[in-house]
Amino acid sequence: MTPHLARRTADIQPFHVMELLRRARELEAQGRDIIHMEVGEPDFPTPQPMIDAATRFLTSGDVHYTAALGLPQLREAIARFYHDRFGADVAPERIIVTPGASGALMLALAATTDPGDEWLLPDPGYPSNRHIVRSFEGVARALPVNADTRFQPTPAQVGGAWTPRTRGLIVATPSNPTGTLLDAAELAALRAAVLARGGTLIVDEIYQGLTYGVDSSTVLRSMDDVFVVNSFSKYFGMTGWRLGWLVAPSAYVREIEKLAQHFFISPSTPAQHAALAAFAPSTIDILEARRNEFATRRDTLLPALRQQGFIVAAEPQGAFYIYADISQLAADSEQFAQRLIEEVGVAATPGLDFGDNQPRRHLRIAYTNRQERLLEAVERLARLRA
Amino acid sequence: MTPHLARRTADIQPFHVMELLRRARELEAQGRDIIHMEVGEPDFPTPQPMIDAATRFLTSGDVHYTAALGLPQLREAIARFYHDRFGADVAPERIIVTPGASGALMLALAATTDPGDEWLLPDPGYPSNRHIVRSFEGVARALPVNADTRFQPTPAQVGGAWTPRTRGLIVATPSNPTGTLLDAAELAALRAAVLARGGTLIVDEIYQGLTYGVDSSTVLRSMDDVFVVNSFSKYFGMTGWRLGWLVAPSAYVREIEKLAQHFFISPSTPAQHAALAAFAPSTIDILEARRNEFATRRDTLLPALRQQGFIVAAEPQGAFYIYADISQLAADSEQFAQRLIEEVGVAATPGLDFGDNQPRRHLRIAYTNRQERLLEAVERLARLRA
Ligand SMILES: Cc1ncc(COP(=O)(O)O)c(C=O)c1O
Ligand SMILES: Cc1ncc(COP(=O)(O)O)c(C=O)c1O
Repeated sequence: MTPHLARRTADIQPFHVMELLRRARELEAQGRDIIHMEVGEPDFPTPQPMIDAATRFLTSGDVHYTAALGLPQLREAIARFYHDRFGADVAPERIIVTPGASGALMLALAATTDPGDEWLLPDPGYPSNRHIVRSFEGVARALPVNADTRFQPTPAQVGGAWTPRTRGLIVATPSNPTGTLLDAAELAALRAAVLARGGTLIVDEIYQGLTYGVDSSTVLRSMDDVFVVNSFSKYFGMTGWRLGWLVAPSAYVREIEKLAQHFFISPSTPAQHAALAAFAPSTIDILEARRNEFATRRDTLLPALRQQGFIVAAEPQGAFYIYADISQLAADSEQFAQRLIEEVGVAATPGLDFGDNQPRRHLRIAYTNRQERLLEAVERLARLRA
Repeated sequence: MTPHLARRTADIQPFHVMELLRRARELEAQGRDIIHMEVGEPDFPTPQPMIDAATRFLTSGDVHYTAALGLPQLREAIARFYHDRFGADVAPERIIVTPGASGALMLALAATTDPGDEWLLPDPGYPSNRHIVRSFEGVARALPVNADTRFQPTPAQVGGAWTPRTRGLIVATPSNPTGTLLDAAELAALRAAVLARGGTLIVDEIYQGLTYGVDSSTVLRSMDDVFVVNSFSKYFGMTGWRLGWLVAPSAYVREIEKLAQHFFISPSTPAQHAALAAFAPSTIDILEARRNEFATRRDTLLPALRQQGFIVAAEPQGAFYIYADISQLAADSEQFAQRLIEEVGVAATPGLDFGDNQPRRHLRIAYTNRQERLLEAVERLARLRA
């Protein structure tokens, strides 16, 4: 049977790292020890107060659909969190609870993208964005970014790439794969560049809370005319629950509600009940301790990698990634990643997964592993070079 | 701020019943008793063995992403269920675990639908299908169906509506809102009509297991070249968990995996662990007792409604809905539904939510409420007419 595939499928790339992971699992099955530094999620469990909240909720067994926009009390809790933690006033009515930041991106893009509309996306960047744009028949245009601008796009770049078909810009701060931030002034300048051209700005704040040496913030402190994507996945340690949120400009909420009804019916009910405990002081204490742990890991790993010949010109200040230039070590990051697995049992993600901008020169190394394992990995890297 | 909305949003209808529900909640807040017969989900809690499985899993706290296609052991469990319960051989590799049947429909349609491609959909039918088609820039073409064919489309109708742009047909058995089934011969004839024209058949079996007086089955017993959508929502009582699955023809699986990675990353991990207990004999015992309860409710409600002047020409044999012609009682089902709420405190769903085919003549009445409440509702209906 020849499948009758939609044309979009030809443009959708898989997560390439999955192939590497399959190989890693094979080696593990043979008894080899693999240090995982390719994983894009915290290695910590979901904090106990959230587990407890979910478990308490489950004793009733009443796990029914909720409103499509999410439980009102959760939307209010998120609004309070914006206020108390970041000093941002966000009306709960603008907060749409979604199946992860993934669901938030689906809704924001479906609501705004006509066929042929172009979205500007920094490259390297989180790959799903461009594939979701493509899925709704939009066109993803890469803005190549490099260490000179800390892998973030500039207003000049936005202006240069803008066409009559450009719909807007998507940025992430902190960014995946580079861990770099946009500060308030940079965000204001990008917003101005986009809005002056009649476009829309989407800011992905999914790694909010995971910053080191600088405070986390939100564009919502000063802007109510942009979309903000967020999630319980990363800072809150809830990846597997599939829960995030979208903050939309008010005028979009009703339209997005309709899409949410049909795409998702409603976000996961147990996850929403778990998330009600996400902002409790006891949870935040746990999360802040983890943030310190991530900071320590970064502070250990970054100089150690540099010593091994990895070039990291733009200091990562957030998320849990180091995007390293490997040109002093190898010609092709994909082959290098294969060697790392086969020869010394270290898994990392080749640049290929993040776009077309010098992917073979870069490797994403995640510090989502215990400190001692990271140190062991560095030793193994040294062995590779010896 | 004028929102810059994608054109598709103008074609997406909300669930109209939500307005009615808001009014119902207002009345309830004023102390009025409302009998809910508009609800499209079982009134039963998730069976205890599944709650227990989820709770056990949660004690570890390790709620991480799973593979995009779902936990291998869950895909195998679903395959075994097809074999043991329905005598259908389905390779686990073809089973894609999704965020509800909703997620399964998103994937199947995104993988197969180019802009302008037409899908044939029975009207009345589940509304999200046509909105998901529209979202991926396909065109939903209604096949008006009525009681003469038990609200199911015929091969002749499919042939008559087919154009060079037609991509395929989506049917549901049992159907929402009508509760009617397609038998094996009818399904074979529909498949033949669709495949002969180079099209694709999607069969929504989400109400599988919820049939009364006839055994449940699956098209997968005899067909491996159609898409089958299913879910843990209805028979298994797991709506709020957001878990379903898609069975795809083998040649599509790899392409759908890519889409699943970007749309969803992975389905809910706690939900998948709960679902591992879905096929245990202790769970099935509970579910079969519920099925008996639904059968009793239908057997009580159907004659009682008929006595009240509701016309139900096509006997519903599945799901938990009665799609009643109200033309002997009122001229407009929407106004009638409003009167029902305001005057006697009964909530039901006007035909409007299910399409354009005589919606004002029909009301969907769900027996997702206790037997005594259903009887009380019938008394109230009698009062309305008195
Ligand atoms: C930048 C970015 N945005 C969005 C997501 C989606 O995450 P989720 O759907 O788990 O919230 C990810 C996940 O890795 C990410 O790195
Ligand atoms: C016919 C039909 N298909 C699909 C769905 C989607 O259900 P879920 O996403 O909860 O599996 C529903 C929900 O009511 C339905 O009635």
